[in-house]
Amino acid sequence: MSSQLKTHPHRRYNILTGEWVLVSPHRTKRPWQGKTESSSKKQAIIYDPECYLCPTNTRIGGEDNPDYKSTFVFKNDFGALLEDTPLFEYKEGLLLAEGEKGISKVICFSPNHSLTIPDMEIADLVNVVETWQNEFTELGNTKDINYVQIFENKGAIMGCSNPHPHGQVWAQHSIPTEVEKKTNSQKNYLEKTGSGLLEDYIEQELNEDIRVISQNKSFVTLIPFWAVWPYEAMIVPKRKMANILGLTDKEKVDFAEQLKTLTQKYDALFDTSFPYSSGIHQAPTDGSNYKEWHWHMSFYPPLLRSATVKKFMVGYEMFAMAQRDITAESAAEKLKSL
Amino acid sequence: MSSQLKTHPHRRYNILTGEWVLVSPHRTKRPWQGKTESSSKKQAIIYDPECYLCPTNTRIGGEDNPDYKSTFVFKNDFGALLEDTPLFEYKEGLLLAEGEKGISKVICFSPNHSLTIPDMEIADLVNVVETWQNEFTELGNTKDINYVQIFENKGAIMGCSNPHPHGQVWAQHSIPTEVEKKTNSQKNYLEKTGSGLLEDYIEQELNEDIRVISQNKSFVTLIPFWAVWPYEAMIVPKRKMANILGLTDKEKVDFAEQLKTLTQKYDALFDTSFPYSSGIHQAPTDGSNYKEWHWHMSFYPPLLRSATVKKFMVGYEMFAMAQRDITAESAAEKLKSL
Ligand SMILES: O=P(O)(O)O[C@H]1O[C@H](CO)[C@@H](O)[C@H](O)[C@H]1O
Ligand SMILES: O=P(O)(O)O[C@H]1O[C@H](CO)[C@@H](O)[C@H](O)[C@H]1O
Repeated sequence: MSSQLKTHPHRRYNILTGEWVLVSPHRTKRPWQGKTESSSKKQAIIYDPECYLCPTNTRIGGEDNPDYKSTFVFKNDFGALLEDTPLFEYKEGLLLAEGEKGISKVICFSPNHSLTIPDMEIADLVNVVETWQNEFTELGNTKDINYVQIFENKGAIMGCSNPHPHGQVWAQHSIPTEVEKKTNSQKNYLEKTGSGLLEDYIEQELNEDIRVISQNKSFVTLIPFWAVWPYEAMIVPKRKMANILGLTDKEKVDFAEQLKTLTQKYDALFDTSFPYSSGIHQAPTDGSNYKEWHWHMSFYPPLLRSATVKKFMVGYEMFAMAQRDITAESAAEKLKSL
Repeated sequence: MSSQLKTHPHRRYNILTGEWVLVSPHRTKRPWQGKTESSSKKQAIIYDPECYLCPTNTRIGGEDNPDYKSTFVFKNDFGALLEDTPLFEYKEGLLLAEGEKGISKVICFSPNHSLTIPDMEIADLVNVVETWQNEFTELGNTKDINYVQIFENKGAIMGCSNPHPHGQVWAQHSIPTEVEKKTNSQKNYLEKTGSGLLEDYIEQELNEDIRVISQNKSFVTLIPFWAVWPYEAMIVPKRKMANILGLTDKEKVDFAEQLKTLTQKYDALFDTSFPYSSGIHQAPTDGSNYKEWHWHMSFYPPLLRSATVKKFMVGYEMFAMAQRDITAESAAEKLKSL
């Protein structure tokens, strides 16, 4: 590692999106006098009569949840995407719009209101992984659905309105912006070099061993060189697979184990129930052959210095480009040591 | 306007960035049980002895502010970009980085601690515009500086750590991502059609008169068709100019007037000192001929339904694409009526 990356402002290239991030390593010394957040506490109760995700309770839409015992999936009562949307086209001079058909679902990870991913047993996390697989299969096979986005918003600071452990799946007709960028980069690389972009990347990361946080036989967890969020991380299967359906039983366990390890480290970092948005990027389901795709799961956590001081992606970041105040290497060192 | 855009989820195309936004018009009915923000109060005092931006006070870096009477510019004591950065190149396998030389400055809009842009006199806002021009000229002419980003973060919720009216300028060697996208779109359009993208766009908007909030002889303020933030708006000069240096005296007054009108409407919308990030996008200063460029100022405000409920750009938005819950047309109607 060049020492210049430790001391001087620089920009780093994201090989997956083709975009750059500004890194200002010297800026950690900046005193913070602005807004602070309240830190996230773990829930004490296993069942909350007021929670619309707990088993047997009635949801806002009026339906009753079953007395579920592991995971539970239902259609979002206020989904941003709807199944009965016509695929219309609107073009009026410079205005261009298209109907966006889709499905929005909620996945409860556990009936236990008090749990979060780092608290769950590996077997129960494997259950979550299998639920993701089922949703990916079902939604991916649905007519007019060409992409399936699995994600989790964790913590009030990440817009999550209910602490009950849950994530979401939004599936839709068009290929979203971020996915298109990653498809293009991986495709170009495969065409140019004949090998997989993320395969080659994780090989390099495993050799250098500076940004790797943990690994097992089938997965590596690392802070990508081009990370934007302070403690952004990525869980990548060592074997190239276009989507999560390719996982063997052993790989499901290995994935669950890395999920647990990373989120436990997160909780330990600032001694708080660590907020983040996480998401799985995988190949579109439009039936094309996406042999360039190597699926991976990313974590975008907002906290910067403590349980109450977050990184604001505002102003310069909105108008110019992403910016971060600590290097990927120092973030990895901290998380690795926990 | 097609009525389908009022009722069905759809995506809209941003002609400036080439990216899409998902619009879910039906989603306004969603109840909000998540995090709420504290609403922003106006400052009562003209001078705050604790404020590091007030005249004569000492800044964190140790320097004393002069007893300034209109605007005041100084180098950010904890700038993300620094002048003495070497323009090194780092390439190691798939890792790519470059030294990013730059300058970060702070611009106080007024010595009066209690003011915000909507409260300021037109003459004082013209002063701010002229200060932006001076900074653009000086920084744009600086060796190795190829782009000048002028912006303001307003309100604690937007990461602003001091209510004293101020904005920032970050100038740098590389052309940032957002600017590059807008350069490409405007260039392609000019090459293809022989006319200016934003000229044609505002002509269409002025004809349709659905998303226009206000206008005067030289400027129009509107909610762009592809707006991402709930009440995102754009102030555009009617005449194509690559940057703010082209403004006549009359145009400076007209710009100041639209600035005041828009921000007054914002404050009236939820009866609060309305938070936002605003920024001016203009042609790079690398010496090339950017005849396609039509500068404009954008406002990205986070509030969605009230002074305390904001839109979270998380999860799906981070992993897939931008998403909004109200249409640009309904946002424009509300702001227009105020
Ligand atoms: O330098 P400031 O105003 O303290 O910092 C604020 O604006 C910067 C530029 O938009 C952001 O990078 C910071 O995250 C934000 O807190
Ligand atoms: O549907 P939810 O979880 O209430 O809503 C949350 O996640 C969505 C998807 O990331 C976002 O669009 C919302 O802004 C956020 O509050």
